[in-house]
Amino acid sequence: MRYLTFSVDGRKTFGAVTGGGVADLGKRTGFASLKDLLAGDAPEIHDQPDYSLGEITYLPPIDDPVHIWCLALNYPEHHDEVQAAGRVQELPKQPALFARARDSLTGHEQPLRHPGVSEQYDFEGELAVVIGKPGFRIPAAEAFAHVAGYTVMNEGSVRDWQFHTRQITPGKNFLRSGAIGPWITTADEVSDVDSLRITTTVNGEVMQDDRAGSMVHKIPRFIEYVSSIAPLYPGDILATGTPSGVGFSRKPPVFLREGDMCEVAIEGVGVLRNRVGRD
Amino acid sequence: MRYLTFSVDGRKTFGAVTGGGVADLGKRTGFASLKDLLAGDAPEIHDQPDYSLGEITYLPPIDDPVHIWCLALNYPEHHDEVQAAGRVQELPKQPALFARARDSLTGHEQPLRHPGVSEQYDFEGELAVVIGKPGFRIPAAEAFAHVAGYTVMNEGSVRDWQFHTRQITPGKNFLRSGAIGPWITTADEVSDVDSLRITTTVNGEVMQDDRAGSMVHKIPRFIEYVSSIAPLYPGDILATGTPSGVGFSRKPPVFLREGDMCEVAIEGVGVLRNRVGRD
Repeated sequence: MRYLTFSVDGRKTFGAVTGGGVADLGKRTGFASLKDLLAGDAPEIHDQPDYSLGEITYLPPIDDPVHIWCLALNYPEHHDEVQAAGRVQELPKQPALFARARDSLTGHEQPLRHPGVSEQYDFEGELAVVIGKPGFRIPAAEAFAHVAGYTVMNEGSVRDWQFHTRQITPGKNFLRSGAIGPWITTADEVSDVDSLRITTTVNGEVMQDDRAGSMVHKIPRFIEYVSSIAPLYPGDILATGTPSGVGFSRKPPVFLREGDMCEVAIEGVGVLRNRVGRD
Repeated sequence: MRYLTFSVDGRKTFGAVTGGGVADLGKRTGFASLKDLLAGDAPEIHDQPDYSLGEITYLPPIDDPVHIWCLALNYPEHHDEVQAAGRVQELPKQPALFARARDSLTGHEQPLRHPGVSEQYDFEGELAVVIGKPGFRIPAAEAFAHVAGYTVMNEGSVRDWQFHTRQITPGKNFLRSGAIGPWITTADEVSDVDSLRITTTVNGEVMQDDRAGSMVHKIPRFIEYVSSIAPLYPGDILATGTPSGVGFSRKPPVFLREGDMCEVAIEGVGVLRNRVGRD
């Protein structure tokens, strides 16, 4: 199943992709939000769309998660390119964790906001995990039982602000500088996470192309690590890091400008498409 | 005025300290939350407490802020002690920004949660700013117009997890490992922020004692910097960094154990008192 949060006729709701359109589960079920739905038993969904996909405005699938946890330097080749750019150190032995605020992300087909104060605005295609069953101190062996599904993230980053100090948080939190969506593909539809192929294109040119299996700290370890710190709640987002090929380490560097089209595709999960808008 | 969020008889509400007790502004005003109140015009408060201070359970004054932005290494002597411990580099030229999640903080007189997985649990007394008027890209010269008031934070930190990688986020986000409160003292009651004295004691022994004027990046600069990244919303919390004297850089180190009593006092703002509870 593919669940999404959207607005239609000025009203915010959530639903499922079905029958070539979207069933409005805000109307058709008793769940207050997609978070509540993910935490509960899957509803029965009839093949009766209420809207076409063209009618809706995509919002982040979860637009008010308690946590958006992200990992830096989680693909070896990406680590190598960052190191070659003089920006890093040895491969971190533990997950290099940071947080994004919810207002740093926009939905599918919404404009990415250019930061304005920087010319070093960069893309990062990523696989994101969405938590269903809450948990605290989850052992790696039980981690997948807490995963509701997967979505696609463009973890848009402002490189000069990211490197103001050792803390990369500033460059990772510009207003609507990243995107997530279009939807959450439920875990039952993903038979082998490691085989998922992540491809990022800018204006049609392939920039990143790798498989989730290349991750240094894989999803069960990420869940174990972060849930040792604080509970995971339904709807929490775990962004698993970006593969190599980001703009700032290319020669010459590729930075995003107004009008550029970014597309992050993950086979079997979804395609997230955003044009860079104005500051 | 001193505003606070609390629970009484199992009900969550917010109010103001008045007449030796607490007026329940959730009942007596039309504001839905303390965030809404801070964003609006100050309500008229009569000198009629609804409860005594002893009757209420203190919650974080804002328990669901959009942002909790924090600064590392923002007092020169604290920077020096961290550097002496081999943990840092030169004094950051820009604010060293990181984020705490809302569930990492508890209220006044509530137990701090020992992280359990670490023996390096440390205190950090700090002055925290609470935003009233929202804003985006706020010039430093206009920053104080966006400040509703001030509160006290114990930015409790788990040192080994903080130094797993260059990103200090993991050690700063353990569940209920920090505290905030007891209340927000409105800005009109603080005539000179720089002169505010911050004192942290553990089991009655003074560990930190400095004035807010020692900050490297002062409040207007912090607001200017962070609001260049994303808007500030009513109820957002800005933790301004800790003075020198933290436990891990003492000789011998002082780490918190179950039963320890931490007190962070800021003259004219409030005294935040928390005992370290169980894992």
